[in-house]
Amino acid sequence: MIDFLTQCRAIVGDAYVLDAPADMAPFLTDWRGRFTGKALAVLRPGSVEQVAALVRACVSQQVALVPQGGNTGLVLGSVPDASGAQVVLSLARLNSIRQIDPVNRTMTVDAGCILQQIQEAAAAEGCLFPLSLAAEGSCTIGGNLSTNAGGTAVLRYGNTRELCLGLEVVTPQGEVWSGLRGLRKDNTGYDLRDLFIGAEGTLGIITGAVLKLYPQPKASITALAALPSPAAAQQLLVLMQDYCGSSLTGFELMSRYCLELVAEQFPQLPKPFVTPHAHYVLLELSSSESERHAVGLLEQAIGAALERDVINDAVVATSVAQSADLWQLREHIPLAQAKAGKNIKHDISLPVSRIADFIAVTGPQLDAAFPGCQLVCFGHLGDGNLHYNVAPPVGISNEDFLANQEKVNRVVHDSVVSFGGSISAEHGIGALKRDELAHYKSTVELNMMRAIKAALDPLGIMNPGKIL
Amino acid sequence: MIDFLTQCRAIVGDAYVLDAPADMAPFLTDWRGRFTGKALAVLRPGSVEQVAALVRACVSQQVALVPQGGNTGLVLGSVPDASGAQVVLSLARLNSIRQIDPVNRTMTVDAGCILQQIQEAAAAEGCLFPLSLAAEGSCTIGGNLSTNAGGTAVLRYGNTRELCLGLEVVTPQGEVWSGLRGLRKDNTGYDLRDLFIGAEGTLGIITGAVLKLYPQPKASITALAALPSPAAAQQLLVLMQDYCGSSLTGFELMSRYCLELVAEQFPQLPKPFVTPHAHYVLLELSSSESERHAVGLLEQAIGAALERDVINDAVVATSVAQSADLWQLREHIPLAQAKAGKNIKHDISLPVSRIADFIAVTGPQLDAAFPGCQLVCFGHLGDGNLHYNVAPPVGISNEDFLANQEKVNRVVHDSVVSFGGSISAEHGIGALKRDELAHYKSTVELNMMRAIKAALDPLGIMNPGKIL
Repeated sequence: MIDFLTQCRAIVGDAYVLDAPADMAPFLTDWRGRFTGKALAVLRPGSVEQVAALVRACVSQQVALVPQGGNTGLVLGSVPDASGAQVVLSLARLNSIRQIDPVNRTMTVDAGCILQQIQEAAAAEGCLFPLSLAAEGSCTIGGNLSTNAGGTAVLRYGNTRELCLGLEVVTPQGEVWSGLRGLRKDNTGYDLRDLFIGAEGTLGIITGAVLKLYPQPKASITALAALPSPAAAQQLLVLMQDYCGSSLTGFELMSRYCLELVAEQFPQLPKPFVTPHAHYVLLELSSSESERHAVGLLEQAIGAALERDVINDAVVATSVAQSADLWQLREHIPLAQAKAGKNIKHDISLPVSRIADFIAVTGPQLDAAFPGCQLVCFGHLGDGNLHYNVAPPVGISNEDFLANQEKVNRVVHDSVVSFGGSISAEHGIGALKRDELAHYKSTVELNMMRAIKAALDPLGIMNPGKIL
Repeated sequence: MIDFLTQCRAIVGDAYVLDAPADMAPFLTDWRGRFTGKALAVLRPGSVEQVAALVRACVSQQVALVPQGGNTGLVLGSVPDASGAQVVLSLARLNSIRQIDPVNRTMTVDAGCILQQIQEAAAAEGCLFPLSLAAEGSCTIGGNLSTNAGGTAVLRYGNTRELCLGLEVVTPQGEVWSGLRGLRKDNTGYDLRDLFIGAEGTLGIITGAVLKLYPQPKASITALAALPSPAAAQQLLVLMQDYCGSSLTGFELMSRYCLELVAEQFPQLPKPFVTPHAHYVLLELSSSESERHAVGLLEQAIGAALERDVINDAVVATSVAQSADLWQLREHIPLAQAKAGKNIKHDISLPVSRIADFIAVTGPQLDAAFPGCQLVCFGHLGDGNLHYNVAPPVGISNEDFLANQEKVNRVVHDSVVSFGGSISAEHGIGALKRDELAHYKSTVELNMMRAIKAALDPLGIMNPGKIL
């Protein structure tokens, strides 16, 4: 294989073909540290043309490649397998913002741009790029697109898919598809854009994108509502949307156990209620008018919810600063979990109308199988997306409990599917959930996916072993 | 071919296999009356299973089929060719609303439901299904999905693509793919849904869909602004979105000539301004709060636009009734055109920031090639979508002028493409624009589209001759 690496060095220069183990190490282990693969080399192209030339080299030698952005994925989609025969193709050096068009409200970017860099560039033009998630300081937009990342702004602005108008892709043949359109309407043939979005690099390599920008809201205000049940949370969502329409930009469910975990691990954070409640919803309202308008509208809707007994109590932030404090409670749940020890995580989605039933049915099923197990149930209820994590019963170590992962997954995912839900809401499939996908998807759907994969990537060199 | 039709009759019953010329006639001519095809038969299945069985019959005899909804398409996508060897498969009998879920804000429908039926069913539950277009009383949602229809609500709610969460499709093999998911987030493999949306029945037959519903706005209020130029309209759009965010639900550009045409053909309609202006924008603002809120916000934004000299003058409707009057002016443009005689139509889109430049450059190019030709330029400027229609110079008959269609198309479409635009914004490709598509799309993109078509429909029986 000397020839192949010599070819790669000729394309990108010696400095950008890493094959020493120490140099490759940061590219081979996944974000959560669950798996370390091996690679023939890590390739770091500096231009779209170099990406295309590297793919052509891979084609000529039938070397499989793993595209990688910030390597912050949670499903082992961006690390190579254990064979040592694959190369990692890092997009990190393609990190320029190519153009901002504030009138068209679009930004054209390289795939390797960090999400936060894009958010800041938009803000500098008075615009909002709404995609926001925990890894925003390290993840790249190419990775966000390839996994169709979700995050905290989906309720109002949609997933990454909905925030993209056009793509530039290097095909499995090493050709460049220039689909960098900044158009809100374009009905000229098959929707290739959405096929590459969420394909996790198995159909081609996204090298650039045209992103949608939005006007910056004038103010975002939050409230924390205390509720008796997830069913009440569903009612509250309908009520809030009827009152506030698209001004409702966040709707996050948290169970009592979640906030107790946060209080235990981060005692310095505020405790908004004196007595505990069964469930909480963090609401965010954004106004294109003013802080005063946002506060007024939120108070009015919360008032109606109290009057109709949908909620037990509520704290409304009266300033942007107070709003940030309330968001901290939500953001510290995953951190509190990490401090408390590993648990069995699920990233699931359901029709919003089925969430309460799902929670009511699945908890007892888990408790029957694993008596005393603890549920850390929180998430983007407005999108039907729950992070439904299972922690060990008191007295059982986290490590020991992890041995039950497959059995726990089966209970949770069977229940999800029975309620018409999805086993991967926003994290994707990667290598981690490939078998689960094969287990739950219909033959008709799997066959169509395989036919498309074979048609676009007949040699199977694009991120093999991921998704399919 | 007796055997084939006998097979079809066994599947759907004699009454639903039409082969008498008089019975078939309504299914063979396109909406604008430009083309009449021939068919072996018109098949009218009454269930998804019957659709699948008919497709299997087509497969076994290698008979090509043309799926048809309301047959209101504008690009010859839903009528058969002249061979007489194809069958029309009408979805019109699949017209049940299967389920409405007001908490999940979704509706599950058969593909043959009329758009207006869906709008009304949503309204009866206090919800909005925002898709709205001129043919809404006759077009079906299956056709809307297959052509990714646009319409007047795209600025706020997106195209039909953005209004669909899940699909049920009969594949070219006659299998049923049940992808009727009502999920806002689902990252489990390739986005087949968006591949079938906009594919104009060339990859499979959409038989059902899960649609997104929205809260009904409390009030929608319009204003008509008078402006010196399209550049001012671009500025106004930015200003209005900064002031009103997603409350801005309509932004329609109309040239002076458009409103003169309306005044001439429909003298009974209101004339909002005493003296004429070069351009007009119809603005619509929807509030989730109240009519008073909508009027106040619109007046405030219009006031700012006047103060900054972005617009010359404006009329703000102070009630929902007055708003309807202003919308009538916009809606009567196509009707006035039809009364004035046929012209050469273009359904184009551009980055919003390039519209003024496109108009400034293209008009003189057309005038140089066809001195005195008249431009009927109007459309959804907020989406970058113009209906850019060319009428004959005074003294030349409409029929004579139509002979120049190809030359006119070349001038307009070359200019569109040079500004990064699309030659089909919301109407699709069908048979009408197939050669234009082949002319303008890159080889890389066409090859990917052909590979996908061959992979999913290897026999080529699904609506052949459309798109590709």
